[in-house]
Formats: sequence, structure tokens, C-alpha cells
Amino acid sequence: MKKLEERILSDAQVLSDEILKVGSFLNQEIDTDLLQEMAQEIADIYKDCGVNKVMTIEASGIAIAVAVGMAMGVPVVFAKKHKTSNLDGGVYSTVVHSFTHNTDYSVMISRDYLTADDRVLLVDDFLARGKAMRGLMDLCDQAGATKVGAAIQIEKCFGGAGDELRSEGFRVESLAMIESMGKDKITFRS
Amino acid sequence: MKKLEERILSDAQVLSDEILKVGSFLNQEIDTDLLQEMAQEIADIYKDCGVNKVMTIEASGIAIAVAVGMAMGVPVVFAKKHKTSNLDGGVYSTVVHSFTHNTDYSVMISRDYLTADDRVLLVDDFLARGKAMRGLMDLCDQAGATKVGAAIQIEKCFGGAGDELRSEGFRVESLAMIESMGKDKITFRS
Repeated sequence: MKKLEERILSDAQVLSDEILKVGSFLNQEIDTDLLQEMAQEIADIYKDCGVNKVMTIEASGIAIAVAVGMAMGVPVVFAKKHKTSNLDGGVYSTVVHSFTHNTDYSVMISRDYLTADDRVLLVDDFLARGKAMRGLMDLCDQAGATKVGAAIQIEKCFGGAGDELRSEGFRVESLAMIESMGKDKITFRS
Repeated sequence: MKKLEERILSDAQVLSDEILKVGSFLNQEIDTDLLQEMAQEIADIYKDCGVNKVMTIEASGIAIAVAVGMAMGVPVVFAKKHKTSNLDGGVYSTVVHSFTHNTDYSVMISRDYLTADDRVLLVDDFLARGKAMRGLMDLCDQAGATKVGAAIQIEKCFGGAGDELRSEGFRVESLAMIESMGKDKITFRS
């Protein structure tokens, strides 16, 4: 998606070899016009796939997931990072490693909100090494839900997960694909 | 908002005197049609107030905040609960007490995303004792931003914060106002 690539080039900051700061338009401050265009693009890509649910992981994936859910007219569910007092028993759970925070955490979703009848589109802001995505896929497998594919705002191709998942036959569509990035240069996959 | 009240009566569960479970349509699984209607209602209420930014606190407020931001055509910012490696210095921060989790936590927002030029609509899913809302208001005050008002999906009137804030002259608009709730009965303020 040309517009997202241009915005990355103009507004994102490369903080390290692995961390791209997009807080000014995609994370902490969200440009809702751009968000709506991205959501529509994803909805168009997956429009004939029988998706009946959008799924993401809290918290940074929620904005794009909600926008995609609205654009597709389907509900959105999100896997939560901690067991809260409002989530009673009967959950699917799995463990995810975060390289950003260098820690493992549990994610879970109530069995009421993910079932074998669901055809799920997995949505997230970033895809790099794919640990969060693998966690979402695992939750779908536990529920017997069909994983239709993934839609990502920014894929860091050098993280490897996108290509690995595609080689396994899983559909991954990313609006911007960063081949490499360094202090003053971001290169997109063409 | 009649439709939200009806949905609460049909689908919400009262887990205790203070906890209302709305996971099946508003939290963990989000009904995006209802979400869109709620966002439009809020956008209509505040349409002539010069709002140029919607603000919320992660994570459960993000869905409604993003929907409101899209409906109003303004950016959305969210205060984050932990200092992440992607948020460098230069933040406003405050401490919020969570009764749900019985703990204090820090919330912060980058100084880049909240300024004295902003006219901010504060959006959240619930308002009860108002600790999260007071935290957001404090962040706005630190930035010198104008607090236009608050928009809440479900206000628990018995929590007291809504009326307290209104008595201080702060505008609080709630789509559903629960006067009291018990095992088999939820009463709305008329």
C-alpha cells in the first residue's frame, strides 16, 4: 500500500535494527483516515473468503482489528494478555514470547468467543518473528476454528515469520513489507 | 441509548455488585455494528465542540475510541499502562488505581501526542469510580490541553464519579447509565 509506505518514509523513526517507531500515526497517535483506508484495503483483499470473525491480540492490534471488523461487518475478538477477574474459567490459553520486552506472557480467550464454526482473519499491527501470530494461530487450533489468513499493517521481512508462514501454506497479506532498515534508510520489498 | 440498554439487559451478566460482564458484545468480542452506532451517537453529541483529538487509556477503551475517532475524523491517542522500549523520554505520566485489579499502575503519553493546542474528548468503555478518567484528565492538564468532555459507553452511576465530575462542571455523556444492579435486575437511570 503506497500511502502507508510513504508515511513510513516520512514519519517513522528507526530506533534500532529491529525497532521501528510509528507512534505518531499508527500506534500511540492513530491517524484515523489512514486507518480507515488500511482497513478497507484489508477488507477488499479478504472479501470473498467467508471471514466471520476478526481476531487480534491486545493492545496494539486492537485499532486496526476494530477498523477491519467494521469494514467487513463482522465481530472482533481479542486475546487478552492477563487473566482478569472478568474472564471466568473456560478459556483457551497459550504462551507467547515478546522480543520487544524480552519476556514470556500468557494470552487467552474465552471459549465462548472462538468456536469451530468460526472462519477467522488474524490481524495485527506488526509481524516480525511471528510469536504473537503463532499464539493466535494456536488459540484458533485449540478452538477448532478455521484460520483464513493474516492481515498485517507492517511486516518486517527480515524477522522471517511472514515468509515462513507463507511457506507453510498460510496466507499472509501485509500492507507494507520492510525488507531492511537502518539509520537513514528503509527498503521495502517490491 | 436504547439499543445499548436493551443489549445490556439481554446479554450482560452481573458478576458481583460492581462487576458487569459485557464480554460477548463490548469487550472481548465486539459487535462492530453496535460499536459503529455508539461511535456515531457520540460523534453527534460532541459535533459542534471543536474536538480535534480523541483520547483513551489502553486497552479496553481502544475499540470505542478508535470508532469515535473515525466517526469524527480526528486522530486518537492512547495513554499506555507501561513504559515500553518504544516510548522514549519526554512523557507525561500519572498513577491510577484499579479497583478491578486492586493495584496501582502508571499511565503515560508522549509529549509529542498531547499539546496545549488540543481540544480533547476523553473516551472510555466504563465509568464507575473514575480513577482512569481522572488519570486521563491529569495528563491533559499536564499538557495544557483543553478537556472538552467525556464520552462513556456504560456509566455505573453508583460508582459516583460521573455525578461528581458533572458537579465540577465537567461534561460527561454516557450511552447507558446503570443506577443499580443485582443478580437478576439492572436498573437504568431514566
